[in-house]
Amino acid sequence: MEEEILIKAQDKKNKNEVLLYLLKNRGKYVSGEELSEKLNVTRTAIWKHINGFKKLGYEIDSVPRLGYCLKNSPDILYPEEIWKDEELKFLGNKIYYYESIGSTNEKAKILAVNGEPHGTLILSEKQTMGKGRIGRKWESPKNEGIWLSMILRPNLSPEEAPKITLVAAVACAKATRKHGINCAIKWPNDILYEGKKLAGILTEISAEIDRINHVIVGVGINVNTKKFSVELESIATSLYLIKKEPVDRKKVLIDFLKEFEYFYSKLEKGEFQDVLKEWKALNCTIGRNVKIIGKTKEIEGIAFDIDELGALLIRKNDGSVERILSGDVSLR
Amino acid sequence: MEEEILIKAQDKKNKNEVLLYLLKNRGKYVSGEELSEKLNVTRTAIWKHINGFKKLGYEIDSVPRLGYCLKNSPDILYPEEIWKDEELKFLGNKIYYYESIGSTNEKAKILAVNGEPHGTLILSEKQTMGKGRIGRKWESPKNEGIWLSMILRPNLSPEEAPKITLVAAVACAKATRKHGINCAIKWPNDILYEGKKLAGILTEISAEIDRINHVIVGVGINVNTKKFSVELESIATSLYLIKKEPVDRKKVLIDFLKEFEYFYSKLEKGEFQDVLKEWKALNCTIGRNVKIIGKTKEIEGIAFDIDELGALLIRKNDGSVERILSGDVSLR
Repeated sequence: MEEEILIKAQDKKNKNEVLLYLLKNRGKYVSGEELSEKLNVTRTAIWKHINGFKKLGYEIDSVPRLGYCLKNSPDILYPEEIWKDEELKFLGNKIYYYESIGSTNEKAKILAVNGEPHGTLILSEKQTMGKGRIGRKWESPKNEGIWLSMILRPNLSPEEAPKITLVAAVACAKATRKHGINCAIKWPNDILYEGKKLAGILTEISAEIDRINHVIVGVGINVNTKKFSVELESIATSLYLIKKEPVDRKKVLIDFLKEFEYFYSKLEKGEFQDVLKEWKALNCTIGRNVKIIGKTKEIEGIAFDIDELGALLIRKNDGSVERILSGDVSLR
Repeated sequence: MEEEILIKAQDKKNKNEVLLYLLKNRGKYVSGEELSEKLNVTRTAIWKHINGFKKLGYEIDSVPRLGYCLKNSPDILYPEEIWKDEELKFLGNKIYYYESIGSTNEKAKILAVNGEPHGTLILSEKQTMGKGRIGRKWESPKNEGIWLSMILRPNLSPEEAPKITLVAAVACAKATRKHGINCAIKWPNDILYEGKKLAGILTEISAEIDRINHVIVGVGINVNTKKFSVELESIATSLYLIKKEPVDRKKVLIDFLKEFEYFYSKLEKGEFQDVLKEWKALNCTIGRNVKIIGKTKEIEGIAFDIDELGALLIRKNDGSVERILSGDVSLR
């Protein structure tokens, strides 16, 4: 069932300064007067905002004379949680934040055609029809993972689009490694831990023959999933299952966004070699015997490298080399 | 200014049988009783329909006892004008028909993401922001041309998408040739008459790395344009300007759709060679000295062939061969 509940769609420049101020002063009491003066908002407006945040699950103490104190944030990926990080340059300059959605990629495609700018994020606490590659399902239970799509408008030709998948894979691996997870990238788009899928990336493009209109990068990271369906439990894992403790989704999200911006800027500056180097350092496909099931044929051999455009290079048993743009890889 | 006026969006199976009956019996009197019995519609409903058609510009005589007689159709591309042709298999099974729209391709992209089926047509009497390749403008004055987009869902890999541009070019050339115009195809997407642009094709795709979600083919044919803007008058032409008489847009449209279905079915059946053969017979690029201005470089040489995927093959002066996927070609 595709229920869609939008919580808000907003530009970073219209972010809620009251919540931001409380987030930055977490644990401290901030007087209504201070908020009102610094942010140029009336005391009544502040009071209304505070009530709104409480409804979202923010624990805010109000003590006469002392003021307001943010004690605890709920486990939600509310846009201000991203905007409080000042390092982000373009990701999240506009955010569509949903409580529930069919698929963030499907929504992103519509928004992109409607002209939403480079860097727009579509975030949802839950997907009812989350998508993997080739129309596969991606389980996206409520508040358990990071389910997001990014609208990008790179100056690349369509054949270069796979580079963006590599950027996303590196960013995803780096962000989860920051949380102590020794994961690896399986070509082209999976993040694995001990052979089980921890995260996935789905890149979709809209293009003329020689020009990209936009790229949608969908990312799913299993953060606090405690139990997968029978179908998936032998092949999927989550940060929670690996670490045996809940992980702060907000931190993982922001780490991912920062890493993505960093490596995307490499791509933009013509330093894609640096991305490839990181990708190779993090991957678990190169050097392995692989079997690739493509649309029309199967190929077996040793995956010995990837090329400039992100294609996998396979040396077959007869010594010949094949360049693989896509397909399902099984490591032997 | 992007004004959008939708006249109707309808499935072929819900076509208006009253209008169709009159169209098929053009010039003959059909009694209300006959219509009512054959089509299982009340006499009042028929009367209402007839009034609606008159408002659209259909000249319908009503004579007591004789009945209704369609004398003249207006110069509009009303869906029933397409549906009266029984040969069409999938094109136009659903039609969005506009009096005015920004761009049929932009609308088609949104409709495609929303799941509209293979073969859906978006037709408009006028485009206020018609698009050519690389974001160029395409003049699309009211009732003077055929401005349409087709939603296609082919089972092709993204790199094969240019094949569809070739199919559309062949169909476009064939359809205009049926009206006595000795036009030629200039690689990759223009239909020329004596060096001037008569029609153009804009193909856009939405895809995963290895799988097409959908293809939008936009077609613009200058049919009855009497005068182009100063900017275009030296490089554009129309059927009217060539033949010095108005041409029936409905006929050109239906001829194009039939030709497209014919050559598209070749593509589907693995007989793309036949499309290539036709394309080569109709083209004015192969064998010519050309200069190609690409995104990053210019290439000069002889265009000696196109390959299986529709790329242009250039033999440069130093004897080396380049494969060109896109760019602006000038014939020398």
